[in-house]
Amino acid sequence: MRRKGLASMAVQTIATSNDTADNAAENAADTPVDLGPAQALSCRECGHRVPLGPSFACEECFGPLEIAYDFTSYDTEELRARIESGPANIWRYAPLLPVPADVAEKPNINPGWTKLVKADNLAAALGVSPGKLFIKDDSGNPTHSFKDRVVAQALEAARAFGFTTLSCSSTGNLAGAVGAAAARAGLRSCVFIPHDLEQGKVVMAAVYGGELVGIEGNYDDVNRFCSELIGDAAGEGWGFVNVNLRPYYAEGSKTLAYEICEQLGWELPDQIVVPIASGSQLTKIDKGLQELIKLGLVADKPYKIFGAQAEGCSPVSVAYKAGHDVVRPQKPDTIAKSLAIGNPADGPYVLDIARRTGGAVEDVTDEQIVDAIKLLARTEGIFAETAGGVTVGVTRKLIEAGVLDPSLTTVVLNTGDGLKTLDAVAGTGLTATIRPTLDSFREAGLA
Amino acid sequence: MRRKGLASMAVQTIATSNDTADNAAENAADTPVDLGPAQALSCRECGHRVPLGPSFACEECFGPLEIAYDFTSYDTEELRARIESGPANIWRYAPLLPVPADVAEKPNINPGWTKLVKADNLAAALGVSPGKLFIKDDSGNPTHSFKDRVVAQALEAARAFGFTTLSCSSTGNLAGAVGAAAARAGLRSCVFIPHDLEQGKVVMAAVYGGELVGIEGNYDDVNRFCSELIGDAAGEGWGFVNVNLRPYYAEGSKTLAYEICEQLGWELPDQIVVPIASGSQLTKIDKGLQELIKLGLVADKPYKIFGAQAEGCSPVSVAYKAGHDVVRPQKPDTIAKSLAIGNPADGPYVLDIARRTGGAVEDVTDEQIVDAIKLLARTEGIFAETAGGVTVGVTRKLIEAGVLDPSLTTVVLNTGDGLKTLDAVAGTGLTATIRPTLDSFREAGLA
Repeated sequence: MRRKGLASMAVQTIATSNDTADNAAENAADTPVDLGPAQALSCRECGHRVPLGPSFACEECFGPLEIAYDFTSYDTEELRARIESGPANIWRYAPLLPVPADVAEKPNINPGWTKLVKADNLAAALGVSPGKLFIKDDSGNPTHSFKDRVVAQALEAARAFGFTTLSCSSTGNLAGAVGAAAARAGLRSCVFIPHDLEQGKVVMAAVYGGELVGIEGNYDDVNRFCSELIGDAAGEGWGFVNVNLRPYYAEGSKTLAYEICEQLGWELPDQIVVPIASGSQLTKIDKGLQELIKLGLVADKPYKIFGAQAEGCSPVSVAYKAGHDVVRPQKPDTIAKSLAIGNPADGPYVLDIARRTGGAVEDVTDEQIVDAIKLLARTEGIFAETAGGVTVGVTRKLIEAGVLDPSLTTVVLNTGDGLKTLDAVAGTGLTATIRPTLDSFREAGLA
Repeated sequence: MRRKGLASMAVQTIATSNDTADNAAENAADTPVDLGPAQALSCRECGHRVPLGPSFACEECFGPLEIAYDFTSYDTEELRARIESGPANIWRYAPLLPVPADVAEKPNINPGWTKLVKADNLAAALGVSPGKLFIKDDSGNPTHSFKDRVVAQALEAARAFGFTTLSCSSTGNLAGAVGAAAARAGLRSCVFIPHDLEQGKVVMAAVYGGELVGIEGNYDDVNRFCSELIGDAAGEGWGFVNVNLRPYYAEGSKTLAYEICEQLGWELPDQIVVPIASGSQLTKIDKGLQELIKLGLVADKPYKIFGAQAEGCSPVSVAYKAGHDVVRPQKPDTIAKSLAIGNPADGPYVLDIARRTGGAVEDVTDEQIVDAIKLLARTEGIFAETAGGVTVGVTRKLIEAGVLDPSLTTVVLNTGDGLKTLDAVAGTGLTATIRPTLDSFREAGLA
């Protein structure tokens, strides 16, 4: 499947836009920790660079900090061979992530390398050409959501910075991912949740044995408290995966892009449909695709990224349709709880990427989400959480609207597991009830 | 990791005890379907052979029918290379399974190649030597239990025999596995369950969109009805995965043995702890290990197989301890529902294997099961269903009793997912509740 044309790039070395051989050397001095190819933190807005550390906002302009890498030493075909012979998890891409080279040897939950399912039955139902529709099914991760990918990066950063407690605020998937990762790594974990969360979610978060602290207040109160804790002496030694470790954490989503392309035989898909919560995942998938192009691992060609939201929490979709560059916050009201971020930090970047690539942002109602969960389950045997209903539902809507081209290779993300959002399909039930006799069976028309 | 000594076996070809080149040729005539190396069905008790078909009991002696293979054409190192370059699922072992050679190309849910987790934290807790304890974590399968492995075999048999409906009786994991597999394959599914099952389990089984039929009666009534249906014209075209397709279905458990050995670098473990429901899984793991030895893929050495039951359903454990060869049925009463088979069909074979290999059969109380689920979660970040609590709990008990040697390589099976048996750990909850202030945080002693 590998394109012959790439062979001509075998002797080429590649630098990303942020890194040249010169500034990579300059950064070596300000890098006290070993996080592999990660060299520094760089502001996404103003480009200001600071050493690798537990920082997330630019001290100059308050813009978000991102990882700046040095990929200059990589030979394309050597890198490809190294990846292909690597482990069946995200650490096959360790040379492209902010982790030490020996990361695969350390105790961690080794997420990733989830299935890319050729979804011909779903394709037929949606009018997509056979062989062109794929589901990237991240319910196959250890705690059954894509959060394992991002937490695994944050864990390495926490180790590098000498943190002893792994923490987060959460109402769901993230709590389990942090609890499991910390348990395997032998770190303490402390997860903060609203005190009145449903019992099932509490159990899922509590079983890993870390501290699980209920905060008397709503999710906003929990977040405010966590920010306060980070700035206080009481928070010393604490790594909040999605706050002071966020630049590292967020990079985990790049692995979705890497895996999709490798699983397509080192080709870019034409179209990708990605759920939007904070928007970070979508921006990192774009970053990952760009890196593969620059590294010569895939041939450059146009691709479109589509963002998917629930109507009950659709700030980015609303802004997209209105032609705005900024996102007006919403108060979420949707069954898609894992996407219910009313003020998505990366909203403006998502708008930019959707427009730049020729994609779009769309939303679906809760009813359409449930329909899409059931459609995916009965066509492909994949039981998605509500976020998967959002992406499949938006895919259907965009095809019907003529926005998404059903003749092109399309990858739809399922980022979580239906077992965690059973309530969404609680109406599903028995198709018949019979007595244990053949007569009763025949009467029910089941033969 | 591969042993050098094996190289000397490179030109050798291997036959299993049931198959010689002669009777393989003889069987070619009575094999109307292509199920790869599977040649016939052979009675485990009397050896009587019949052509491949939807049969499960010997017409001569009513003994259970098993698959007889022809592996005579395999060269050890060619086979190893073929396996190692195969897909990251059970179909890498297609040459050793009753499936056509092109099975990986057909739509199915591609289970297997789940993680073998080096469980050093759990080892420390149990007093096992570092690097010697592993969890084979089958919660990573598509519907999060090992049932995906066995249903995938039954699906191929159903296709080969021209069945149009995939069916089973179930109260849990099997229903989901059959529903998902049939959906992906484009077959109709019809799953029979007791009509008064808990709503959560009904939803998990119903979401895949097949027929889900509630039977007015208990699980025994459901099973009796299914047997009646198979013998009736109304059941024509129906493949019951665990009844008339059982010989094929059961072979799926061999893949656990294959994966464990390959993931250990083509070595046999010294000790394996396997849960016992019908006992079929344990017998097929032994069969798989024996095949690897005969094929030269692993060096022969002694291994011990240990069976694990819940005290509330411990017919095999009781028989083992009493020195009996037969198993007296019990009425199950345990939280380990997925193992609650009071009259296990393969009980006598399990007793034989445990004794022959120098293993044992042991059971644990419901309280010990819950403790073991929590222990596994907090040490390794793996959230097991109750069956995983049974194996980990029995492992602990056998180590404490000096029966299981903590200095040897030991693999413990986790065959399912804690998300499906949340009730078992429902007592788990918040470790603290605080107000959203630093003072409250400090007062709670969380810093």
